[in-house]
This record gives sequence, C-alpha cells and structure tokens, in this order.
Amino acid sequence: MTKIFAFSLGIACVNKNGAYLDTFFPFLLHKPPDKLTGLLNDFLEEGVSELSASEFARISKMVAEHTASVSVTSATRPHNYHDLPSCKRLVAVKLSEDRDIQSTPEAYLKLHLLSHRLCLPNTINLDGLFQQLPTVCWTSLGPIDPAELNERLLEARFSDEHIDVHSIDKFPRMTNYVVPSGVRIADASRVRLGAYLGVGSTVMHAGFVNFNAGALGPNMIEGRISQGVVMGANSDLGGSASTMGTLSGGGKLKNSIGENCLVGANAGIGIPLGDRCTVEAGLYITAGTLVEVIDTSDNSSRILKARELAGQSDLLFIRHSQTGKVLCRTNKNSIELNDALHSNN
Amino acid sequence: MTKIFAFSLGIACVNKNGAYLDTFFPFLLHKPPDKLTGLLNDFLEEGVSELSASEFARISKMVAEHTASVSVTSATRPHNYHDLPSCKRLVAVKLSEDRDIQSTPEAYLKLHLLSHRLCLPNTINLDGLFQQLPTVCWTSLGPIDPAELNERLLEARFSDEHIDVHSIDKFPRMTNYVVPSGVRIADASRVRLGAYLGVGSTVMHAGFVNFNAGALGPNMIEGRISQGVVMGANSDLGGSASTMGTLSGGGKLKNSIGENCLVGANAGIGIPLGDRCTVEAGLYITAGTLVEVIDTSDNSSRILKARELAGQSDLLFIRHSQTGKVLCRTNKNSIELNDALHSNN
Amino acid sequence: MTKIFAFSLGIACVNKNGAYLDTFFPFLLHKPPDKLTGLLNDFLEEGVSELSASEFARISKMVAEHTASVSVTSATRPHNYHDLPSCKRLVAVKLSEDRDIQSTPEAYLKLHLLSHRLCLPNTINLDGLFQQLPTVCWTSLGPIDPAELNERLLEARFSDEHIDVHSIDKFPRMTNYVVPSGVRIADASRVRLGAYLGVGSTVMHAGFVNFNAGALGPNMIEGRISQGVVMGANSDLGGSASTMGTLSGGGKLKNSIGENCLVGANAGIGIPLGDRCTVEAGLYITAGTLVEVIDTSDNSSRILKARELAGQSDLLFIRHSQTGKVLCRTNKNSIELNDALHSNN
Repeated sequence: MTKIFAFSLGIACVNKNGAYLDTFFPFLLHKPPDKLTGLLNDFLEEGVSELSASEFARISKMVAEHTASVSVTSATRPHNYHDLPSCKRLVAVKLSEDRDIQSTPEAYLKLHLLSHRLCLPNTINLDGLFQQLPTVCWTSLGPIDPAELNERLLEARFSDEHIDVHSIDKFPRMTNYVVPSGVRIADASRVRLGAYLGVGSTVMHAGFVNFNAGALGPNMIEGRISQGVVMGANSDLGGSASTMGTLSGGGKLKNSIGENCLVGANAGIGIPLGDRCTVEAGLYITAGTLVEVIDTSDNSSRILKARELAGQSDLLFIRHSQTGKVLCRTNKNSIELNDALHSNN
Repeated sequence: MTKIFAFSLGIACVNKNGAYLDTFFPFLLHKPPDKLTGLLNDFLEEGVSELSASEFARISKMVAEHTASVSVTSATRPHNYHDLPSCKRLVAVKLSEDRDIQSTPEAYLKLHLLSHRLCLPNTINLDGLFQQLPTVCWTSLGPIDPAELNERLLEARFSDEHIDVHSIDKFPRMTNYVVPSGVRIADASRVRLGAYLGVGSTVMHAGFVNFNAGALGPNMIEGRISQGVVMGANSDLGGSASTMGTLSGGGKLKNSIGENCLVGANAGIGIPLGDRCTVEAGLYITAGTLVEVIDTSDNSSRILKARELAGQSDLLFIRHSQTGKVLCRTNKNSIELNDALHSNN
Repeated sequence: MTKIFAFSLGIACVNKNGAYLDTFFPFLLHKPPDKLTGLLNDFLEEGVSELSASEFARISKMVAEHTASVSVTSATRPHNYHDLPSCKRLVAVKLSEDRDIQSTPEAYLKLHLLSHRLCLPNTINLDGLFQQLPTVCWTSLGPIDPAELNERLLEARFSDEHIDVHSIDKFPRMTNYVVPSGVRIADASRVRLGAYLGVGSTVMHAGFVNFNAGALGPNMIEGRISQGVVMGANSDLGGSASTMGTLSGGGKLKNSIGENCLVGANAGIGIPLGDRCTVEAGLYITAGTLVEVIDTSDNSSRILKARELAGQSDLLFIRHSQTGKVLCRTNKNSIELNDALHSNN
C-alpha cells in the first residue's frame, strides 16, 4: 500500500481569480495509520484536491473515526461548511512522500508540519517553497492579494470600516494558524509560520523566529533565529542577538545553538555552538574571527579561526577589554533559566 | 480607620470557565481621601469583589461624588452595565496595603498603577505577579484563553470573520489599557502594561519598555528598557541599545540611566549610569568590563572593573579603535534632545 | 500659467472638533499636464479645500478624463461619496510649488509623494512637517484623537467590541495608505508613511524605514534606515544594523549606502558608504573611529578618522580580532542578493 507522509483538510483563502493566498489546516496527520491511509487513498488524488462541502464533511467524519486525537475530533466536527464565503475554498492535501513543493496548499502543509512540532527544522523537503508562496497583504480583514488591496483601502475609507495592513510577505505570522502549547510570544508579528517552538519557549519583543528554524524548549528567545537555526534546551538568546543565516548576506556554515548556552544581548554567532557555551554581550563571532584559545592554566595555547571551534561545547567567548583580543576559555558558569519567568501555562 | 492603598472599579474578561484573563481599570485611586475610604470600606471586602450592574453603578456614583478628577467622572458615568457580554465581569479591587498579589485583577491593578504614573517602578510590591497573570492570546477580538483559541480560529475560517493573534503573553500591551498623556509609542506591541512613561517620552520602533520599568520623561527610547530599569530626564537610549536586566541571562546589578545620558545605538550597559554619561555606539559595558580611566590631562590613571564606576556621573565610555582598550574619560558633551522631535502634543 | 507641483483628492479623518487626524490619497499627480493644470487652477485654491460630495465627484471625473493612469481611473470612479461617516472629510490639496508644509493634509500629501515613489528622499521640502502632523492613536478602528481614546476604550469594554491601539505617533504605518509594487514588508508597523521603497525591497522583521528615507531596490533591509538615509541597489543592511541619523543623538554627517554594499548584522555606520563596501557584523563605524588603512600589498598606509573615508567605494571595514584595531582594506568580495529570496511577486 502507498504510505501517506502527510495529510490534512484545510480552508484556503483565494483572490478574485481563485488563486490561493494561503491555507489553514486545523489538524495534521503525519504518517497516519494504515487503515486510514487505505481509506484516504481510495478517496483522494496525490497533492491538492478541492472539495465540496459534503465531501469535506464526509472525509472529516472518516478521519475523526479513525484517529483518537481530540484536536482532530474538534477540527472535524460539523461546521457550517455550506455557507462558506466566496473567497474561501475547502481542500484536502495528501502527500505520499516528502516531495518538492508544487502548490500553495502544499507549502502551507509543510509549514504547519513544522509549527505543529510534527517535524523538526532541517528534516523536511522545502524545495519550491519560495516559488509556491505568493506574496500576500496580511490585513485585519484577512489575506488580500496585493493587486486587490488599493481598491479595498479606498472602499474602506469611504465607509466606517478600517483596514490595518500588518504585513506584505510570503509568510504569515504563525499564531494566526498554529498556537503551540506552552509557549509565549510577546509580539506575534515576529514569528513566521513554519517556526518550531518547543514547550517552554518564550519569544520576547526583540525576538524573531524564521520558518524552518526554532527552539526545542524551554528557551528564552530575545534575539533572531535565522532560517535553519535550531536552539537546544535551556539556552538563552539575548536581546537583538544574531544567528547568522545562510540565505542573505551570511556565511555558508549552518549555525545552531546547543543546550544551556547563553548568547548575550547584541552578540552574534557565525558558527554553530555546542552545549554550555557563552558568548559575551556585544561580541559577534563570525566564522573567520581569530580566537586565542586559553587553557585552564590561563595560558594561551593557540590562535584559531572560530570555524575550527564549530560545534564544540563548554566554550566562553569574550573580547578582552584592554587588549581587544577575542579569547576563548572554558566556560565555568552555565546559565540557569529563571523558572518563574519561563512558566508558560 | 483602615487606609486604602489602591482602589478601582474594573471590567474583566473571563474564559469559558469564568477564570479571569485580564482587567481594565478606567481610573485608579491611590490613597484616596478619608471620607471616600470610609464609604468604600463599608461596602467592599479586601481584594477583589465581583459586582452586579447596580452595585457597580452605585459605587461608581459614590466615587464620582467624592473625587474631583475629570477622568473619574468620565469613567464612572453611567454606561450600559446591564448589557454586559457574558465573557465580561464587573469588579472592584480594594487593597488596604501593598500586599503580595493574590489574584489576576490585583495584578492588573498594580500594573495600571505604574502605567498611570501613580507609582514609580521599583516602589511597589509585585511579588506573586507572574503566578497571578495567566498567559493569554491577545487577539483582534480581545483576550482569548489559549485553550479556546483553536476552536475560535476554525470558526472564523468558515465565516467572513478574521482573527489576528497579536501576542501570547502574560502581559498585554499597555496602550489597550492606558495611554498616558504626552507620549509617543511608534509600535505599541513593544510596551507592556506596567511600563512607566513620563511626559515627553518617545518610544521608537526598536524601543521596548518592560513592566516595572520606564522613563521619567522627556526621553528618546530606541532601545530596550529591561524590567526594573528607569531612565532619567533628557536621556537617549539609542537604537537596539540594551540595558541588562536581572531576570534572565543578565547580571545581578540593578541598572538605571541618569539624566542627560546617551547610550548609543547597538550599545549596552550592565552597570547603572549617573547623569551626563555617554556610551559610544556599538560598545557594551558589562559589570566585568575592564576600563582604563583617563584623567583630564589625558593620562591613564588606573584600570577598574566597570562595576566600580556604577552610578557615577560625567563619564564617557569608548573602545579605542586602534588599541581595542575600553576607556573612560570625562564627558565634555552632554546631549540635547531635539525639541521638534520630542514634542508629543 | 501657474504650474502645479502636486495635486490630489483625499479622504481625511477628523476628531470630534473637526481637526484633521490624517489624509489618505488614493492617487497622486506630480507636475500634471498643462491642460489639467489649467482646469484645476480654475476650480481650486492653493493648499487645502474641503469639498462636497458633488464637488469631489466632479473633480474626480475631470482628473480621470485627463490622465491615462489606470490607478487614477480606479481611484476616481464613483464611490458612495454621499454616505461619508461624520468623522471623514473630502479634500483636495493643490500645491503650485514645493512650499513649507502648512496643514495636515499637505503633510500627508508630501509623505504620499515619497511612498508613491514620485519623489526621492531628500528632494522635497519637509519644513513644517512635525508641526503639522498631530499625534494620533492608530487603532483597529482607525485614527482616534488621544484626547478621545479613553472614552472609546471604556465604551468598547462594556460591549462586544475590542480596540487594539497599535501606535501613538505622528506618522502612521505606510501600508495603510500606500503599498508600492514589488516589495515585501514583514512587519508593517516598522515602515512609516513617507518611506521610499523601490521595486525588490524586502524589509525583514527587525528592519525599519523612517519617513524621507529608503532603498532604491532591490535591497534586503534587516536593519534601521534612519531619516534622510538612502540605500542603493543590491545592498544588504543586516539584522539590527544601524544607520546613524541626524535627528536625535546622532552625528551631523548625512549618511547613505551605495550599491552592492553589505552592512553586517548588529553593525552600524556613522559615515556614508560608496559602492561595494562591507562593514563586518558587529562593527560600528562612527565618523570619529580611527581606521588603519591597509593597502593592497597588506601594508599599513596610514591612520585616518572614518569621516575622511566618507563616500568612498570598495572598502572593507573590520576590527582585527587579535589586535582590536579597526582596519580598512580593499573589498574583494561584493555581495550578491539571493534571487529566490528577493523575488517579491
């Protein structure tokens, strides 16, 4: 039998020409059980299928009967499918394997997989993502095609209505689609759909989490987690701290942060960090930074490029404030996250 | 007679189980006059009381009769208390002393006291705050319990409605509750309820003000004011500048900024500054930074840890761009805020 | 014949006293053709005219007949002018020359000229701007006078309505008024009306663009573009990178960034850069920074203040990580923007 990699039922918004703007998936099945797989394969083609209200209701019911999950039950219990506004579509997306992204609903399915914590960053195929995601005006009325916005703004101006245009982007904010349990996100405009936030993640106001990036939790995130970067448990990324990405202006080294690390405020990393590492506030370590390594007897042992220290644990990086030398010592103090602060319930 | 430390009438939002999500207080009495205190003590228990519409109206009227404040009169004039939606509650909160916080409405009362400028940061008892503040989804429909959000998102998707989830946090943005006179806040999602902003404070887009923190005004705030940090008059915190906090990943020294200081863009402080101090753009002074102190004859006098300079006035901190040494000189130029820019009317 | 510098028809919001809060211009004419100029001069006084619905319709029709632009036609086709809410006004603004700003609608007209890409930053007269822009509460219900907000918040609390106060500022976000073609703006609260964003500009979540400032496109903007600063094509401003402004706490040198430049994450500039310059991540070059210039044979040629290198091309600025010296070399690698990432359609 053909396996299913991922399946869901969704509600999509479309522009006036019927082109997809986004898709919302209230639940997700990742590698569903064989019995349900067989039934879904009987009903649905590979990829995206547009459904009538009765087809949507029928498949919803079938899914709810074959999965124990409460969230599925809630998502698939009858809603008023028949009064759907004209700018919405009911869809099913079924992927038998993790193929390149071929449509907007498939792109949204992959992003939901990450934000629902069903797949870790860097573990699924996102080829085709940028090509399949349209740029959308994310407004207080919902997604609007940029080509249709000006007319909407004008109509609103002549009436009592008001439209806020919150973003013009390929990626919407995560929280309008997925709110994972046990997280706090102080300014939700700074976390894109496709971010992975583990239980106990707190994203403060200067924090940012890109798609296919995130924190395993618990974590304090006051800096920017670039695409592809993942933070391990109990690490703290300080205010405006930077994790150099590989997409734009950055290096080629895939960065990450291990467990129990502290990257200080206004600091930055261009190399992956192991566990229990600290970068002092204000210090940017790029892959090419020359680092003097100090041994435990306080002797200088050698000078390396930071990339040679990539992924190593128990490192403390500072810039000596009287010689200007960037130094690396053994990190004797690993941080402790503040419990009261990180309780997200 | 038992005195009253703080009193108000509020409108609270509750979840489907009746648990408090927030409380809005349209006015606040801090140490009200004896006559009113006597009347309130006759009517109300210590702490939170849920009120019927007629009780709310009666106490409102009583308060308005015994206080001259226009804002009280406005806040307590009859509204349609009787048509209150089922997710709202009318409450009174009366605290005879500044006790530990024991309920959500009490937590909100304390935060309102700060944002209404009735109490300065670090002068009131906030013990119990994190425990009594629930994590809430702050949405375009108002506060929603995280456990109830997914169903609401789904319902909205099947209809014409759209929900923006702006934040998932214990603290709401200040401006949905309190808009102090004479301030500008470019991006209100970055100022938490409980921030103290004096007249003439301007918070720019990269600025941030935590609860129990703030600026006495006038001030230009383009950086982050951490919990507990207060800026004095006529000081400027540059873009993305950091004030190291004591909650998470920071040090143990309570930081502050005096009057007429400039902390440059992308700079940071881990020590309190006195008056007329400047930290150059891009320089982070932690408590442990070794600083060479230069006397007025341009001689090096000694090398200190920055914490030994904590709270001193007239200091200029730079990192020499040819030796890498962090230096401290006497600050000869104190800044002047741009008048046109800081006029907030 | 008196020429026209700029003309438009707009819809303004007013407070309860009829004072202007903002003005939205759905289209703009910059130096319109002579025939239309003659007609407009017959109908309209210099500056702002409040119009009746029939006058607005009549002038709309006249403009549409004499201009080929589709956007004008769309903007001026009949809407229900007669049901205008009481807090709105129909206005015409006609400026025969680029005079000092004398009213709120004139201020908004100038800001629209910049955001509609009809005038480059630093090319129009903005004197009087701050004086003529009122501070407004930008809310989910539209602009509200700060003096009227508290009553509105209170009314909403007693009802099912919810008001989000997104900003308290003289400048609204650009995207509620103008959405230029071919741009992405991840968090629209960080781009003020009056920003100039050329085709292919992407403003990421930590980016910021002030009024009278911008990017000619294509560009990646993850840092802050201060008032008066312009970036040339194919340049990248890294996360939280700072461009020192001249308004507040900054220097007196007008900064700019040429083409094919990279200002790294958490870096900053206090001097204008020519083309193909790089400032390494985390390095802040102020005008007074002492820079050792290294020639192509790797010899130190001289030590200069950075302001002496203002506007020069092909420079690479780094801080040597073992000596602490700020160095300037010839930049051998100019950046390339990632095409997939910068496609904004």
